[in-house]
Amino acid sequence: MKIKYPNPSIKNEKIQAVKTHGMLFENALNTTNEFYRIHNKAIIYKKPTPIQVVKVDYPARSKARIIEAYYKTPSTTDYNGIYKGKYIDFEAKETISKSFSFTHIFPHQIEHLLNIKKHGGIAFVIIYYKKFNQVVIIDIDEFNQEYVEANCDGAKKSIEYERALEIGKAVKNGYTPPFDYLKVVDEMYF
Amino acid sequence: MKIKYPNPSIKNEKIQAVKTHGMLFENALNTTNEFYRIHNKAIIYKKPTPIQVVKVDYPARSKARIIEAYYKTPSTTDYNGIYKGKYIDFEAKETISKSFSFTHIFPHQIEHLLNIKKHGGIAFVIIYYKKFNQVVIIDIDEFNQEYVEANCDGAKKSIEYERALEIGKAVKNGYTPPFDYLKVVDEMYF
Repeated sequence: MKIKYPNPSIKNEKIQAVKTHGMLFENALNTTNEFYRIHNKAIIYKKPTPIQVVKVDYPARSKARIIEAYYKTPSTTDYNGIYKGKYIDFEAKETISKSFSFTHIFPHQIEHLLNIKKHGGIAFVIIYYKKFNQVVIIDIDEFNQEYVEANCDGAKKSIEYERALEIGKAVKNGYTPPFDYLKVVDEMYF
Repeated sequence: MKIKYPNPSIKNEKIQAVKTHGMLFENALNTTNEFYRIHNKAIIYKKPTPIQVVKVDYPARSKARIIEAYYKTPSTTDYNGIYKGKYIDFEAKETISKSFSFTHIFPHQIEHLLNIKKHGGIAFVIIYYKKFNQVVIIDIDEFNQEYVEANCDGAKKSIEYERALEIGKAVKNGYTPPFDYLKVVDEMYF
């Protein structure tokens, strides 16, 4: 299946803006993953942000200092690892609006997640709807169906919060860990 | 099992040196992984090098430019992904000497790989012995046994090429792909 996706044409500045907004959610996810690792439940890490290094300075007696570099488009997704012996892979997104716009995800990231699922892995998008203080997990097949429909129907270019709850599953907020999303993964995939 | 590993005390400059040496092997591995992805055999990627961004400049009308950043110690390993439905994780190393020195791998990377195996994943170290133009895969349990012994025996702080061939498995060199390491993974884990 090869679909011609709409070009999100996200500029680098825009990605950075999204990153900054997503910081708290990202931290909460990282804390959650650390909790899972400590309790030997899963080994899931956030991948480093890909950066193209152009110039490096080596000041005497101190460590290498990068003095020119640029953010690169990620090849894959934010998070991956192993859970209950299975490969798990997901993209984490945060939105301040009532609706998650498809401009905030790259077509090749969706393709990557679809591929992971075909290879027998667990693949989804996890979205934090900040306005509702609610995290929702949407399996990549469901997510992609919305995406393909949005591509056909010019009016619809996002996933409304209510729709997300219909096609996905809500994650309960907690303290330790902040978002126990593996509980929902259990319900969805095991 | 908690082992007190010797501190490799690798300085950042040293890591960079290793990186530069390892570039050709890294490229060959990346080409191999691309080949696997195109042929839908496995989805394995190299993780981006972790970089701590300190200062970013936003010149008008152009993209964000990082003007101060530093290389960080990687939390995990170089490569991970999915193969035949299984999670696969490995660290890739190149040595110009006859022996692979343990100072070129971080103790926490070994711990990470041991953990992956405990969780049901495939975990190994893949070493390119440049002098012999030979790539060898060593399962993490075997690798760790050598490591622990080296920690007890002050004289032995590396894995000689001949020893690597004993405890690991050689990967045939080729053209497309350059190193068909999944053939050896099949023999070792399936």
